[in-house]
Amino acid sequence: MNLYRPWSLRDLVKDLATGATTPTAALDRARSRTAETEPELAAWVVHEPAPDITTAMGVLGGVPLGVKDIIDVAGLPTRCGSALREGVRGATADAPIVRAWRRAGAVILGKTVTTEFAFFAPGPTGNPAAPGHTPGGSSSGSAAAVASGQVPLAIGSQTAGSVTRPAAYCGVASLVMTHGSYPVDGIVGLSPSLDSHGVYAATAADLAVAWAALSGGRPAPRPPRPPRVLLWTADPIGVLDDEMCQALETLEKRLTEAGAVVDVFPEERLIAEVTAAHPVVMAYEAARERSAELAVADRLSEPLARLLRTGAAISDTDYDTARRTAAQARTRVTALLSSYDAIVGPAAPGAAPAGLAATGDPVLSRAWQALGLPSVTVPGLRDPAGLPLGIQAIGPAHGEAELLARSAWIETTLS
Amino acid sequence: MNLYRPWSLRDLVKDLATGATTPTAALDRARSRTAETEPELAAWVVHEPAPDITTAMGVLGGVPLGVKDIIDVAGLPTRCGSALREGVRGATADAPIVRAWRRAGAVILGKTVTTEFAFFAPGPTGNPAAPGHTPGGSSSGSAAAVASGQVPLAIGSQTAGSVTRPAAYCGVASLVMTHGSYPVDGIVGLSPSLDSHGVYAATAADLAVAWAALSGGRPAPRPPRPPRVLLWTADPIGVLDDEMCQALETLEKRLTEAGAVVDVFPEERLIAEVTAAHPVVMAYEAARERSAELAVADRLSEPLARLLRTGAAISDTDYDTARRTAAQARTRVTALLSSYDAIVGPAAPGAAPAGLAATGDPVLSRAWQALGLPSVTVPGLRDPAGLPLGIQAIGPAHGEAELLARSAWIETTLS
Repeated sequence: MNLYRPWSLRDLVKDLATGATTPTAALDRARSRTAETEPELAAWVVHEPAPDITTAMGVLGGVPLGVKDIIDVAGLPTRCGSALREGVRGATADAPIVRAWRRAGAVILGKTVTTEFAFFAPGPTGNPAAPGHTPGGSSSGSAAAVASGQVPLAIGSQTAGSVTRPAAYCGVASLVMTHGSYPVDGIVGLSPSLDSHGVYAATAADLAVAWAALSGGRPAPRPPRPPRVLLWTADPIGVLDDEMCQALETLEKRLTEAGAVVDVFPEERLIAEVTAAHPVVMAYEAARERSAELAVADRLSEPLARLLRTGAAISDTDYDTARRTAAQARTRVTALLSSYDAIVGPAAPGAAPAGLAATGDPVLSRAWQALGLPSVTVPGLRDPAGLPLGIQAIGPAHGEAELLARSAWIETTLS
Repeated sequence: MNLYRPWSLRDLVKDLATGATTPTAALDRARSRTAETEPELAAWVVHEPAPDITTAMGVLGGVPLGVKDIIDVAGLPTRCGSALREGVRGATADAPIVRAWRRAGAVILGKTVTTEFAFFAPGPTGNPAAPGHTPGGSSSGSAAAVASGQVPLAIGSQTAGSVTRPAAYCGVASLVMTHGSYPVDGIVGLSPSLDSHGVYAATAADLAVAWAALSGGRPAPRPPRPPRVLLWTADPIGVLDDEMCQALETLEKRLTEAGAVVDVFPEERLIAEVTAAHPVVMAYEAARERSAELAVADRLSEPLARLLRTGAAISDTDYDTARRTAAQARTRVTALLSSYDAIVGPAAPGAAPAGLAATGDPVLSRAWQALGLPSVTVPGLRDPAGLPLGIQAIGPAHGEAELLARSAWIETTLS
């Protein structure tokens, strides 16, 4: 069976709007595809027993949605992929971000697999686009559910590379929103200054529809000219494999042929510095945010226990220095983005690593996450073995609508 | 005695760098000016008994700084202008934002007067530029301390108009930073999604120096061309007095004569809607953030008690709707700011109202605060009676350096 068969959100929204399909039929399709693929994929932790399609209004009225299991959905337990949460009761209320998606019309089908407390210890989920390879993490279940077409839309969160990397590995599109766009109440987070909201769909064009519905705007019009972009190669970070290096050459060629201006990103070294500063901020804040778990660290996986212990030992001064590095870089990158539409570069070092024991390396998201800027993972490229290779596009703070329109344009050049 | 005599930060920084003055001399000047003016101004709650100038390194090494008394400074009590905080002990640690200013070299002289929990009930502080008139609030003491030249730099915070309005009323410059630029730990805040950091200095050019020192960058170069700005008149909000209407005409004339492009801001109605949405978000979050105070509301001022009670009664749905209104507007305004350098308009409805019993109306900051964008108050205009009239310039998220360079340019056209 072909597990990789993403479901077009644009088509579904159009069909719902024209009456060519109904919320009931969309729900049936989601259930049927889930029944068919879930034994191999294991993307879900719990299903909503009675999804309410009768009250689904708005642009997304009737669109099935998966929710990462660190985010509260009223009535469902928030298990966070941790034994510490065994037997926890249903959440008393929706997280504000869940309310926002419901308002846009989305119908919640259940909770999707996350790594343990959104860090590295993986869940059981497989990769629909690369069987036997990791789907990435931490928002593993949401990415796999979208890549397999169980749902056309699923949400996650990102502290390091928890949305971008799974999108890249599973061959779907993702948006990481500007830090602070929506409250993070009702989310079991790691790092208040890094935790951001994310969402998956089949394509960047689908995400433009989803973002417009969520934010209450209209999708940005088709850009009047090809974009001006800066190509970030991540060269000083030194992690790209040959296939991704090749993919970046393809990207540059396709963009240039299609009329885009592609200039060299002039701050590679700075981004490498921010990449090194990110884990300091993350560990310091995680030790404080998850102090209850730190107190019972022997019941955590080794990587998470190490993160929290490391963070507890970081000095205020080192934390301040790391934040300052990020703030300086944000100023510089924001200035660059006043002359360019986006920064484009690799979303991950390469294709999904083999095996399900680890979730791959988030290193290429760390810097952008520390800057708090929106990022779109654009699918379309593949390595010679046919595994997805993700490209990411970064834009200015709160520039999601324009960034998605540009990303959709880039997407067409890659397909 | 002329109470209004702001102290140039640029001159001080230059003199410290060249050895024309010393940190000791700067401290002496601050103490002497404070001794002279404080009996009339009442800008300070507590003075640091032994400011440490020996370790002050960095660009601002030796620059005296005042800190609003809702922000923790190690060893000093955080009294929040409230009887509930009588007898509270010294804070155990600096707030991260205080650490950041110390790292830049600033020497903390003490805590400045705030309204009760940064809401409306005023403290005793007077207005150096308009004796007998309110200095505005809530960051009253910091604005007055800078306007009188007690210190060249003081920090505050803004949830509605708590930084911008005092700057406008006292005839000094202020910067409200992009929401989320620095952590708000160690600050007794009202509304996590609105609370932002602010800073006062004599001029926008001074703030460019301060921001560069804080963020570790260099001041943005002198802009290569006059700015392109959108003129926001706040017309649908309907609160401007005649003097401010006149001032906006003067602003437009001066900008145009100096070569700026001044276009009509096309979203007046949208900003009026966000202005109405802001208090919903603020009250809802304040009731939750200050739940301990809500529990003893009879010991609060009437306006604060009313805010918290109102907020407790706001439904999730109304809160979500208000946040959504702001999010939509942020998208639209961010798109506009990709074609313009700044939005310029009134910082307050007019000059400082007479009397110290109330702090004036923050209404013209509400929308920009809900959008989380950086805002600079530019001094220079006066009404026919000689009272200061403030102009504000709003820029894109994280565009502080550029916005301050533009604001300094605007400032020169007004002087």
